[in-house]
Amino acid sequence: MSSQHIYKKLEIVGSSKTSIEDAVQNALTECSKSVRNINWFEVVETRGHVRDGQIEHFQVTLKVGFRIQGS
Amino acid sequence: MSSQHIYKKLEIVGSSKTSIEDAVQNALTECSKSVRNINWFEVVETRGHVRDGQIEHFQVTLKVGFRIQGS
Amino acid sequence: MSSQHIYKKLEIVGSSKTSIEDAVQNALTECSKSVRNINWFEVVETRGHVRDGQIEHFQVTLKVGFRIQGS
Amino acid sequence: MSSQHIYKKLEIVGSSKTSIEDAVQNALTECSKSVRNINWFEVVETRGHVRDGQIEHFQVTLKVGFRIQGS
Amino acid sequence: MSSQHIYKKLEIVGSSKTSIEDAVQNALTECSKSVRNINWFEVVETRGHVRDGQIEHFQVTLKVGFRIQGS
Amino acid sequence: MSSQHIYKKLEIVGSSKTSIEDAVQNALTECSKSVRNINWFEVVETRGHVRDGQIEHFQVTLKVGFRIQGS
Amino acid sequence: MSSQHIYKKLEIVGSSKTSIEDAVQNALTECSKSVRNINWFEVVETRGHVRDGQIEHFQVTLKVGFRIQGS
Amino acid sequence: MSSQHIYKKLEIVGSSKTSIEDAVQNALTECSKSVRNINWFEVVETRGHVRDGQIEHFQVTLKVGFRIQGS
Amino acid sequence: MSSQHIYKKLEIVGSSKTSIEDAVQNALTECSKSVRNINWFEVVETRGHVRDGQIEHFQVTLKVGFRIQGS
Amino acid sequence: MSSQHIYKKLEIVGSSKTSIEDAVQNALTECSKSVRNINWFEVVETRGHVRDGQIEHFQVTLKVGFRIQGS
Amino acid sequence: MSSQHIYKKLEIVGSSKTSIEDAVQNALTECSKSVRNINWFEVVETRGHVRDGQIEHFQVTLKVGFRIQGS
Amino acid sequence: MSSQHIYKKLEIVGSSKTSIEDAVQNALTECSKSVRNINWFEVVETRGHVRDGQIEHFQVTLKVGFRIQGS
Repeated sequence: MSSQHIYKKLEIVGSSKTSIEDAVQNALTECSKSVRNINWFEVVETRGHVRDGQIEHFQVTLKVGFRIQGS
Repeated sequence: MSSQHIYKKLEIVGSSKTSIEDAVQNALTECSKSVRNINWFEVVETRGHVRDGQIEHFQVTLKVGFRIQGS
Repeated sequence: MSSQHIYKKLEIVGSSKTSIEDAVQNALTECSKSVRNINWFEVVETRGHVRDGQIEHFQVTLKVGFRIQGS
Repeated sequence: MSSQHIYKKLEIVGSSKTSIEDAVQNALTECSKSVRNINWFEVVETRGHVRDGQIEHFQVTLKVGFRIQGS
Repeated sequence: MSSQHIYKKLEIVGSSKTSIEDAVQNALTECSKSVRNINWFEVVETRGHVRDGQIEHFQVTLKVGFRIQGS
Repeated sequence: MSSQHIYKKLEIVGSSKTSIEDAVQNALTECSKSVRNINWFEVVETRGHVRDGQIEHFQVTLKVGFRIQGS
Repeated sequence: MSSQHIYKKLEIVGSSKTSIEDAVQNALTECSKSVRNINWFEVVETRGHVRDGQIEHFQVTLKVGFRIQGS
Repeated sequence: MSSQHIYKKLEIVGSSKTSIEDAVQNALTECSKSVRNINWFEVVETRGHVRDGQIEHFQVTLKVGFRIQGS
Repeated sequence: MSSQHIYKKLEIVGSSKTSIEDAVQNALTECSKSVRNINWFEVVETRGHVRDGQIEHFQVTLKVGFRIQGS
Repeated sequence: MSSQHIYKKLEIVGSSKTSIEDAVQNALTECSKSVRNINWFEVVETRGHVRDGQIEHFQVTLKVGFRIQGS
Repeated sequence: MSSQHIYKKLEIVGSSKTSIEDAVQNALTECSKSVRNINWFEVVETRGHVRDGQIEHFQVTLKVGFRIQGS
Repeated sequence: MSSQHIYKKLEIVGSSKTSIEDAVQNALTECSKSVRNINWFEVVETRGHVRDGQIEHFQVTLKVGFRIQGS
C-alpha cells in the first residue's frame, strides 16, 4: 500500500465453482461496483461447500483495503 | 450460508441486561434497520459491565454476514 | 477431567432455536448415542443463522472429550 | 471502562448448573467478596462437565477488571 | 450449513502435485468413501514438499463437516 | 464504552511520519469526517515503510467503535 | 509426512506421572490399539494436575496423523 | 529476565492523555506502590477513548513480571 | 478440575537447569508457599537461556488454578 | 520432513499475476538460488494488490524449511 | 510493498530508553548495515525492562521485509 | 535478554530420539556452529514422528535470539 493516505478495510466473502483465485476476483468485482480505489486484499478464511463428495464451490473471506477519497 | 452470492460482513456490538442471546438479538434488531438480507452472525467476543458485584449488562461483539443485493 | 486415563476429543456442531446452552445439550445428546463416557466439552465457536432480522437458531461448535474404554 | 484510572485484571473460573450467564455471576459474586470496584469482565473460555450425556455444569473463565483504589 | 441438524467435523490432509484446489478435492474424494453427507470444508493449513527447488506437491489440511445421520 | 447502546466497528489504517500516536490521530481525524459518535479505538496492527534504513512513516490499523445513532 | 497419501488427524489426551514425553507415548500406545499407520503427532496443549503442591500427572493433548489405508 | 528465580505476572491497564509510553509508565508507577522487584513488562493490548474525533487517552494493557521475594 | 467451586488463576514463571518438568515443579513449589489448594496448571510458554551454545536453564510460564477457599 | 536432521526456516514473500500456486513457486525458485536442500514450505499469509477492481498479483508469504548441510 | 519482486523477512529486536518509535529505528539502523533494500517492518511484540518502577528501556520485536537483489 | 543491544531471531528445528530438552539442545549445538552470542530460545512447536506406535523422535521448532556483534 502506498503511503500518507488513510485506508478503510471491508470484509467480504466471494465464491466460485472453479478456484480460490476466481472466488477472490468475484468478490472484488462485486465490491468495486460501490467502492473505488481498492488497493489490496488479504485472505482471511478459505472454505467451501460439498455435494456428493465434490467441491460445489469455494468461499473465500477477504479483507479489502481502499483509500478514502480526498485523504 | 447459501452459495454463489457475494456477502459483506459487519462488526457490531449489542448489549442486554438479561442474557448473551438477548444481546445478540438486540444487535441484530438495530442492524437490520439499515441492512437487509442478514444471513448469519459469528460471536467474536463476550464481555460485560459490573456494578456492585452484579452483572449490569452483557456486551457481545458480532460479525454479521449479509448478501449484497443483486449479487 | 480425572487422571491417568486416555481421552479422545471429537468436534461437533449443535443447534437450537432457543439458547446457546440448549445448542450445547442438543449436540451432546446426539453425540452420546454413539459415544460413551463423555466427560467434558469446550466451546470452540458460537454463531447462528438469521431470518428477517431475527435469530433463527444458534450453532455452537464443541470439542467433546471422552475416556477411551479400557484405558 | 472509565478513563484516567489504573486497573488490574484477574482471571477467575465460575460454574453453574443452569447457564453461562449464571456461571459468570457466580464467579463475580465470589470475587467481589475480596475485590472492590469491579468494572467489567471478559469471557476467555466456556467449557463444562458432562455426565450420562447431560450437561452437569458450565465452567466459564473470565478476566475481571477493577480499578486500583486511590488511582 | 443448513439448520437444525447435528454435525461432526473431521480433520484430514489431502495432497496434489498440481494445485491447492486439487488437494482439497483429493481429500474429499477419499473421505467420502467412508463418510456420507459431507456439507462443507474449512482450510486449516496449506503447506507442501519441495524437491530441487520445485513444488513436489501441495498438502492441505481441512476440517470437513458432515451431518450425523438421523439428526 | 458506555452501556445499553448498539455500536458498530470499522477497520481503518492511518499513517504518520512522526509517531504511532500521530498515525492513530490521523486515522481518527479522517474517519470522524463521515462518522459521528466515535467512542473508542483498538490498535490491531503496527507497521511501517522504510527508505534508506530510515522509517518513512508508521502505518497503524485500528478498529474504531461508534454508537449507532438512535440506539 | 510422506507424500501423495491422504491422512486423517485425531485429537487425543495422554497422561503420565513422570514426564511430558511419557504422556505423549501413553497416548500413542492407547491410540495405536485401534489406529494403524500413525505417522506423526503435534503437541496442542500441555497441562497437569497438582496435589499438595506436587505435580500429580502431566496431561498432553496431541493431534495424531495417520495414513488412511488404501490411499 | 535473569535466571533461577521464580516470577509472577500480573495484568494491569494504564492510561495517559499523551502517549503509549506514558500509559505504560503510569501503570508501572501505580503497580510498583504495592509490588517490588518488577523486572519487565509485555504490552498485551493498546486501545483508547475518543471524544469529538480526538484521542482522549490511550489505554495500554500490560503483563508485568516480578521476582517473588526469597526465590 | 472438580465442579461447583470458584477458581482463580495465577500466571507464574519457573526455571530449571535440567528439564521442563522440573521448571514446572519449581514454580509450583514456590507458588504453594503462599497459595493453597492448587488444582491444575497449564503451560503457556516454554523458553530458556543459552550460554556458549548450551541450555543454561529452561523457563516455563504457567497458569496455575486453585480453588478459592470457602467456595 | 525426514528425521534426525537440523532444519532452518526462512520467511519469504513471492508474487504472481496468475495464481497462488505460481506465487509459491516463484518464491521457491528465487530462494533456491542461494539455499540448498529446501524440503518444505508453509503458507503463512495470502494477499494481493488490486487495480481497477482486478487482481494485479497475488503475494504469498511462506516459511521455507531446509536441512542445514552436514547435520 | 511494491509488486513482482521476491522479498525476504527477518526478525529483529531493537531497544531504546526513550520510545517505541526509537526502538524501531535503532533496530532498522543496525539491520541496514548488512541488509539493503529494506522496504517495510511489522511490529510483532512490544515489551521492556523495568528498574525501581521506571521503564529502563523498550524492546520491540520487528519483522523486516527487504527485496532480494536481482529479483 | 540483556538491554541496549540489537538482536536477531532465527527459526530452527531440532530433533532427538530421547526427549524434548535434547531436541532443543541438538538444535542449539548445530546453530552455534555458525552463530555466536546466542542468548535465548523460545519453543514455537513440538511435534514428532511415530513408527509402530512408538515415538521415533521429537521435533522441536525454536526461535533463537542472538546479539548482533558490534551492537
